[in-house]
Amino acid sequence: MSEIVSKTNTGRFFEDFRLGETIVHATPRTVRAGDGPLYTALYGTRFAVQSSDAFAQAIGYPAAPVDDLLVFHIVFGKTVPDISLNAVANLGYADGRFLRPVYAGDTLSTTSEVIGLKQTSAGDAGIVYVRSIGRNQDGEIVLSYARWVLVRKRHPGTPAHAEQVPELPKAVTPEQLGQGCPALELTAYDDGLSGSTFRWGDYVVGERIDHVDGITVEEAEHQLATRLYQNTARVHFDAYAARETRFGKRLIYGGHVISLARALSFNGLGNAFHIAAINGGRHVAPLFAGDTVYAWSEVLEVAELPGRQDVGALRLRLVATKNRPCGEYPLRLGDGYADGVILDFDYWALLPR
Amino acid sequence: MSEIVSKTNTGRFFEDFRLGETIVHATPRTVRAGDGPLYTALYGTRFAVQSSDAFAQAIGYPAAPVDDLLVFHIVFGKTVPDISLNAVANLGYADGRFLRPVYAGDTLSTTSEVIGLKQTSAGDAGIVYVRSIGRNQDGEIVLSYARWVLVRKRHPGTPAHAEQVPELPKAVTPEQLGQGCPALELTAYDDGLSGSTFRWGDYVVGERIDHVDGITVEEAEHQLATRLYQNTARVHFDAYAARETRFGKRLIYGGHVISLARALSFNGLGNAFHIAAINGGRHVAPLFAGDTVYAWSEVLEVAELPGRQDVGALRLRLVATKNRPCGEYPLRLGDGYADGVILDFDYWALLPR
Amino acid sequence: MSEIVSKTNTGRFFEDFRLGETIVHATPRTVRAGDGPLYTALYGTRFAVQSSDAFAQAIGYPAAPVDDLLVFHIVFGKTVPDISLNAVANLGYADGRFLRPVYAGDTLSTTSEVIGLKQTSAGDAGIVYVRSIGRNQDGEIVLSYARWVLVRKRHPGTPAHAEQVPELPKAVTPEQLGQGCPALELTAYDDGLSGSTFRWGDYVVGERIDHVDGITVEEAEHQLATRLYQNTARVHFDAYAARETRFGKRLIYGGHVISLARALSFNGLGNAFHIAAINGGRHVAPLFAGDTVYAWSEVLEVAELPGRQDVGALRLRLVATKNRPCGEYPLRLGDGYADGVILDFDYWALLPR
Repeated sequence: MSEIVSKTNTGRFFEDFRLGETIVHATPRTVRAGDGPLYTALYGTRFAVQSSDAFAQAIGYPAAPVDDLLVFHIVFGKTVPDISLNAVANLGYADGRFLRPVYAGDTLSTTSEVIGLKQTSAGDAGIVYVRSIGRNQDGEIVLSYARWVLVRKRHPGTPAHAEQVPELPKAVTPEQLGQGCPALELTAYDDGLSGSTFRWGDYVVGERIDHVDGITVEEAEHQLATRLYQNTARVHFDAYAARETRFGKRLIYGGHVISLARALSFNGLGNAFHIAAINGGRHVAPLFAGDTVYAWSEVLEVAELPGRQDVGALRLRLVATKNRPCGEYPLRLGDGYADGVILDFDYWALLPR
Repeated sequence: MSEIVSKTNTGRFFEDFRLGETIVHATPRTVRAGDGPLYTALYGTRFAVQSSDAFAQAIGYPAAPVDDLLVFHIVFGKTVPDISLNAVANLGYADGRFLRPVYAGDTLSTTSEVIGLKQTSAGDAGIVYVRSIGRNQDGEIVLSYARWVLVRKRHPGTPAHAEQVPELPKAVTPEQLGQGCPALELTAYDDGLSGSTFRWGDYVVGERIDHVDGITVEEAEHQLATRLYQNTARVHFDAYAARETRFGKRLIYGGHVISLARALSFNGLGNAFHIAAINGGRHVAPLFAGDTVYAWSEVLEVAELPGRQDVGALRLRLVATKNRPCGEYPLRLGDGYADGVILDFDYWALLPR
Repeated sequence: MSEIVSKTNTGRFFEDFRLGETIVHATPRTVRAGDGPLYTALYGTRFAVQSSDAFAQAIGYPAAPVDDLLVFHIVFGKTVPDISLNAVANLGYADGRFLRPVYAGDTLSTTSEVIGLKQTSAGDAGIVYVRSIGRNQDGEIVLSYARWVLVRKRHPGTPAHAEQVPELPKAVTPEQLGQGCPALELTAYDDGLSGSTFRWGDYVVGERIDHVDGITVEEAEHQLATRLYQNTARVHFDAYAARETRFGKRLIYGGHVISLARALSFNGLGNAFHIAAINGGRHVAPLFAGDTVYAWSEVLEVAELPGRQDVGALRLRLVATKNRPCGEYPLRLGDGYADGVILDFDYWALLPR
């Protein structure tokens, strides 16, 4: 049967990427009325806007929008078979912008443009930079973000691509925020129901918040989550193959950590209902089943949105740890990260003014 | 940053409650078309009315109502951050009445009135009695119940509140039942599809039913369930902190046990489709992941509903055990409960006549 | 209380079945917008037609149909309390035909006709052959399949039934396929979005495909799945009772294995979007939590569908293994199955031409 073309996708290697090419990713996915409850069951998220149609409608949404990170994970998941099946490491995110709310019934699909390529000095792998764009069924962009991953080469000896490293902003500017949030009727925003009396104006730069609670993660949970996003990265699912890896066990999808930390952050940031932008993010250390995740936040910037009186933006650093409560706000240790830190995430959230 | 107000909710202590005050709980929650399947996946419930739109519509519901205990857990979950974050123990329930069916699309919110306060003799904690009320998006009451919990004091030396213990009924009376169940078209009630030929009139006081089957509970399952209800009690989620506790591990939410036992009770009570009232309930012993839950029921009363020929009520004692099958109906041992008993639950169910 | 009829269903024994009788199974089940996401979370399935309303509508479906195996498991689950509660083994399937798409909102119910009975030579059990039929709320047949199970006798000494073994086809014929798939508008079928450029005509008889990926199964996952299908077989849920069994632990529902293997098969069969028929299936060995499932496929037949130019059929053998990757296509070893093989499944899939 040597004439039969192999039908199996083994993923792209570094050599397979071409600068400027656009990859259409498979499996559009309709977000359904079941995705919200599953997301709630996985993380325990409690932001009122996403939880309640009645709350969302009172302030001007047509219905409760889908959690921003659920959108991120679904859009991201589609890229895995084409971008990162042979990735060594997921290096970073930048310039992530949520540009339109997503509602149950919307269908999401993703394309990625290769915006940079850089071979490692060892020559056996290279960094692939992509801009991934999630669209709804009407072709409208709901999310755009840049990501770079270290991808193995198929043959270490292959000549390198011409190197090109894209310039990416350190942070999304306030002018770019707010497209994912309609104009709100703030008089109807009920702090009793939202769970926090602290509005945008109550936070100050430098303020740090320990989110107090911890959540222990089980194998079944992160697998359910990662499959929900149709993310196929095998390191999350195959314990048999994992025995031969460095860690000897399954790794938890980094996005699962972001969602856990974000859900924990409700306690202290209960009105930070919308993630408007992702400035950057780094998965500092891996998380494994059985570990307990804690989180704390720091207010990096407080910004008005040009022309809007309803909401303001906080730039927040969200730090997650494992098996280390965050009362002492662990972050740095010398040049590196402190013990137990697993996530250093920089984003813009919107809050009512 | 000493001037910054802490944004984190550390929960109320006994001193923080005032008799007669009404607490608005956070995070209204729209019940979605995904909650039913998740509830089914968590417990395996098989009551036809909640499982099938076609069955429910044939007998007079506009659609399949949401499982009564799912409503209970969602309404209850909202109270946790305000009532029981510093609870030592959940002592009891009384006078719980399901007053209106809930359907997918309804938004639930909860308020609690403090109806009693009683400091312990040791002076380091007190019992808080609340009446919690769940409402839908139209403000209609769907569930009302009383609950009392033992809550720590912030400072053991604080003077005690004036003591007031509310009078609560030992059981809801038959006259109060049935508001959560529309008038039914019984000719369309199909015993083949419901899974039981035993109607209301076939049960007698004193009858005991071993529900035979057992379900082993996993950490991932009870965490998914408890988060689905947005219940934030940390004892259910934080294995790291639990190492220092009396049990050394996570506790399973008591409501999870009630739902497991209720689902098991289908085998013997297949037509007891609606929980009309909760007379009382006691979590006799904790449940942990890895334990197997069994259940049995005893018929305590058989009652007509005034003015209704379609349904009748059974007052049932539902007993759950762990790692002990219920063929011998374990309950009491001397003054206490028999080994393995974890739940003693007293409720009214409606069955077709 | 000796006069009280036991209300508990202990399941039928071999003596209780009568040739030709039709059993109405309990608990009709409305498939909801939450079932698709849960199914995705459990298996990671990525077939575009079931995943995306937009994709499905573009090619002629009114909406994304429910995954065929979800329909199978729900229809099958209803039969368990009546057919296989006292089963020793689930021996086989044949002549399974998916006859109509199922959509969220449809209500499924099941009846089974006893089409064969054959006592074992030992006389303590017998094989029960049933034809189970799943219908939607309009009474239309959505699935019909034959199944045979070995069921214990209540009393080994009971005289045997007259023996009758039904004739069942080795495979469904191509003429019978396609009723579960509407006429498709193939010009709108987008291989980029479907995730595979390989159409029906690209596969050849004898071709074998290693699906490469592996999924480790957790107790919580298979229990959630099996309860989602309202399948009550206690071997899947009761770890306490399982201690006394041959394996000493819970068994994973065989249908869970089929769904895992089917989801894995996307990598290589991404356009095989519809299961039109199940020709046969054998659960060769049990699967337990902690095991990792791999799969490979062989093309057994390539067939046109009479009168249809839109889709063609592949008859596929889908083999699942545990803790054994499938690069060498493990199947037979002497007269038996090779080590690690757990499923040998024979079905017809439809692909766009």
